[in-house]
Amino acid sequence: MTLFEKHQPVITKAIEVLHSRIFFAAFPENPSPAVYGETADADGQAKFKNQLGKKFEELKQSGATTWGGQEESPYTQEALKISYPLFTVDSLIGNSKKAFHQWRKVSAQDRAGILMESLERTKKRFFEVAYATMHTTGQGYMMAFQASGPHAADRALEAIAAGYEELNRFPGKVIWDKPMGKFNIQLNKEWRAVPKGISVVIGCSTFPTWNSVTGIYGSLITGNPVIVKPHPGAILPIAIFVAEIQNVLTENNLDPNTCQLGVDTFDKMITKELAEHPDVKLIDYTGNSAFGSYLEALPGKTVFTEKTGVNSVILDSVEDVDKAAANLAFSVNLYSGQMCTAPQNLYIPADGINSPAGKISFDDFAQKFAAQITGLVDNPKAGPFVLGAIQNKKTNERIAEAEKLPGKVILKSRTLENPQFKNARTATPVVVEIDSSKKEIYSKELFGPIALLIKTKNTNESIALAQEMAMKHGAISCAAYTTDASVHEKIADEMALAATPVSFNLTGGIYMNQNAAFSDFHVTGGNPAGNASFTNPEYVTKRFTWVGHREPVK
Amino acid sequence: MTLFEKHQPVITKAIEVLHSRIFFAAFPENPSPAVYGETADADGQAKFKNQLGKKFEELKQSGATTWGGQEESPYTQEALKISYPLFTVDSLIGNSKKAFHQWRKVSAQDRAGILMESLERTKKRFFEVAYATMHTTGQGYMMAFQASGPHAADRALEAIAAGYEELNRFPGKVIWDKPMGKFNIQLNKEWRAVPKGISVVIGCSTFPTWNSVTGIYGSLITGNPVIVKPHPGAILPIAIFVAEIQNVLTENNLDPNTCQLGVDTFDKMITKELAEHPDVKLIDYTGNSAFGSYLEALPGKTVFTEKTGVNSVILDSVEDVDKAAANLAFSVNLYSGQMCTAPQNLYIPADGINSPAGKISFDDFAQKFAAQITGLVDNPKAGPFVLGAIQNKKTNERIAEAEKLPGKVILKSRTLENPQFKNARTATPVVVEIDSSKKEIYSKELFGPIALLIKTKNTNESIALAQEMAMKHGAISCAAYTTDASVHEKIADEMALAATPVSFNLTGGIYMNQNAAFSDFHVTGGNPAGNASFTNPEYVTKRFTWVGHREPVK
Repeated sequence: MTLFEKHQPVITKAIEVLHSRIFFAAFPENPSPAVYGETADADGQAKFKNQLGKKFEELKQSGATTWGGQEESPYTQEALKISYPLFTVDSLIGNSKKAFHQWRKVSAQDRAGILMESLERTKKRFFEVAYATMHTTGQGYMMAFQASGPHAADRALEAIAAGYEELNRFPGKVIWDKPMGKFNIQLNKEWRAVPKGISVVIGCSTFPTWNSVTGIYGSLITGNPVIVKPHPGAILPIAIFVAEIQNVLTENNLDPNTCQLGVDTFDKMITKELAEHPDVKLIDYTGNSAFGSYLEALPGKTVFTEKTGVNSVILDSVEDVDKAAANLAFSVNLYSGQMCTAPQNLYIPADGINSPAGKISFDDFAQKFAAQITGLVDNPKAGPFVLGAIQNKKTNERIAEAEKLPGKVILKSRTLENPQFKNARTATPVVVEIDSSKKEIYSKELFGPIALLIKTKNTNESIALAQEMAMKHGAISCAAYTTDASVHEKIADEMALAATPVSFNLTGGIYMNQNAAFSDFHVTGGNPAGNASFTNPEYVTKRFTWVGHREPVK
Repeated sequence: MTLFEKHQPVITKAIEVLHSRIFFAAFPENPSPAVYGETADADGQAKFKNQLGKKFEELKQSGATTWGGQEESPYTQEALKISYPLFTVDSLIGNSKKAFHQWRKVSAQDRAGILMESLERTKKRFFEVAYATMHTTGQGYMMAFQASGPHAADRALEAIAAGYEELNRFPGKVIWDKPMGKFNIQLNKEWRAVPKGISVVIGCSTFPTWNSVTGIYGSLITGNPVIVKPHPGAILPIAIFVAEIQNVLTENNLDPNTCQLGVDTFDKMITKELAEHPDVKLIDYTGNSAFGSYLEALPGKTVFTEKTGVNSVILDSVEDVDKAAANLAFSVNLYSGQMCTAPQNLYIPADGINSPAGKISFDDFAQKFAAQITGLVDNPKAGPFVLGAIQNKKTNERIAEAEKLPGKVILKSRTLENPQFKNARTATPVVVEIDSSKKEIYSKELFGPIALLIKTKNTNESIALAQEMAMKHGAISCAAYTTDASVHEKIADEMALAATPVSFNLTGGIYMNQNAAFSDFHVTGGNPAGNASFTNPEYVTKRFTWVGHREPVK
């Protein structure tokens, strides 16, 4: 049985659900022992702890010049002291060029089988990945497990499935038979899906696997060799994925350099040198807008970006104001607002929000929202775990600055003690009221647990501002609360024009921050928040070129 | 019966053949009276002649500032004196913005029906389009009829079909039902294919309809309003298409400004002002590389280009050298080499070409090739009609310069009398022998009837040069002659890496210049000859954005 035959059922199912977009998950998100085994969690934690202070020696790449690594845990604020092999850019590129000519000739079926097998191997290490994610990103345990493990693997499968489908969308060979009256012209035609070349995937510090595996697997399934350039602050989680890919490649007598890890350190970043290298044809990137826009403008490259955005919440009318406030409070608290899908600007009409119980004034909503945040933060069984820790010290600076904004501070940020990690770098959300006239304040991303309550003239102004922010500055998510059908359609239409998906009237256990594989396109690609979308057809078709040859039938 | 229902069979068939890539033509390429009617040709010619010297008053656009037009017939070298309404860029954009919000809400089915109906209307005017094409581009009658009429309409249908398919690739609505253990989360989800906005299609002087209709119909089917900016030297053929689109729009109570004609004159070109306008989101372009690369670099635009390239012929070994030479001679003569797919660089090993009858020396092949060109040129029943006329005087200058290149002139260019048009601007091909060491000579497009016989060390050098030209300077077509299976695969592989389709061993009535709708992708998009391909999925998916909204099921 080939690896493709082994994994064919799940690939077939994944292609099917990519089109039906109903619920599907190939990798269970529930970390319970019943699903992953009694000792899986403890074993994963032990493996993670055992890696601390040591060389990461799992990679099958050769030619390292030295070793380095500067990861630090936001929970302990101590260095992990893991070191990784470092390579020159020339060495990475040289290895990649060599691997390219082998990998591009591997069939789409074999590629799909090998890639799926690597995900199955990584599945056995989801807990290890989870602890690695916690102690690099500051995510809480549950998010670290789900986002970096099963949800990332589902997104990777999505890319494999989408790529496999597109590679098979046109025939390999056909006889073209054109009647010319007295005779026919017959040509043998064949089409080749030609991979574009070396692919560089640039990771971010907050979602080191979830935001990188789509590009890695999207490039690999379409025949391109990949160099993974992780954020220097969050290497270990993705290093485990790369190691497992290299394992399966080697077992199948293929060059492990088909997927290399190109680690760098804060003092000597190699990202620009890699990206600008003429042999690099594909770039995937998650991170700040300035660097993303620089990458997008590089000539002769195909670039996929997820940059920053300003996510809006439009509050028009609600069924139940407390449930709405609770839902939004959770969204702001979740991983301390360090998600690209977290809400930032909440637009509330000056004369309040309609509800079955009458108008809820701006101030009343502000108080309810603040109370919900505080309630969650102060719940010792939830707060520390939902908030996690702050990945980057600069986020703390932004929080401090937010409290000095020209508006009323509704809720101040404070630190929160984590029962497991006394030294955790934490910050609860800050909430500031801003008048809609002060557009310069809220026309940019304030990354972290920062929520602005923006007082608008009315819902029409709220919609116009949300649309303007998305069109000018990008947006990845949007929430809206309305019980009015025409307002509903207006929001749906105007935000669609700004290429922003809207979550309407969320209450309970589902949040605007969440994006489900196989169903929700992540980043639409249609506004300045990024030009890529997981996983629409372009996300894979742009990684190869259809070339057709032809010859008369003998 | 709706227009969609009327045209559904052909759209369905077109989607099917886009994937099977077998022969298909919806619009017959045979201009015989049996197909198009006894009087169709004469009627079309009369309509064309009647238009000369007059205003083109068929457009339903309003707000023209003045009238203008500078078309000139390459056959008579006289001005056509047809004038068209001229509009300010602001007026075109203003009209387009207004039309956008109506057109984007028309269903994909209704758009497809309206667009197919417009093609059916244009079909009745194919002969008029043919004469308009002859007297703007210089194409011979048969090419003018086929390329501007049925072949263009087939490519337009291809764009409609590809767009319609992609618009239906994801569901409009679905219930997403996620088991959470004790309960399910249920969301109503919906996806909208949101058009990007105003589309500008910039035409060229040699193929005014064939190279423009794909962009026009590709943008329209996906909901974008279009401004067609024809080349000032070749307006009438595409004006007829636009007029028929406007007719069908108006009959269906839709704004005719959904597709506007934006004519300009050589002394006051509006292309840059249009392209740079912030409201213009999509640009389709056919023409020179310098302007194409400028367009590709415009920030915030989705740009589809067909620029220039250096097309190669690799001569390794032949079954029948005379048939090969005849086939290539026809390709060089056809429309006097003014096709983006015409061959330019013929690479021939210094020690000759293998054949069953032994080696054919470089000089022998050169003489056979020259003799085949001369034979066709001097055939009074074929020569003038195959060559047509020279569209642009600059091409004559390039021909004169080619004869001064540092190499042996194998065949000089001369004028050729056209029995129907005594004043036709004609030029037969010039053939020059160049040593492969003189790369600077042949590393650029020499547009027109110019063929270079490049003497290489061997076939490996020929392949390497053909690949290098395509990778560095672009290529749209390539021919190769080899009877050796391993050389065959090497050429197929190396040229595929340069994203260039290869026609192998063509003889008889099929030529490397020809690209068939529904089967041959035109321009692969993978080398500097252009970033677009007719009609691969990206050609339509990049014209809209998938946006998904969601809301809990009540």
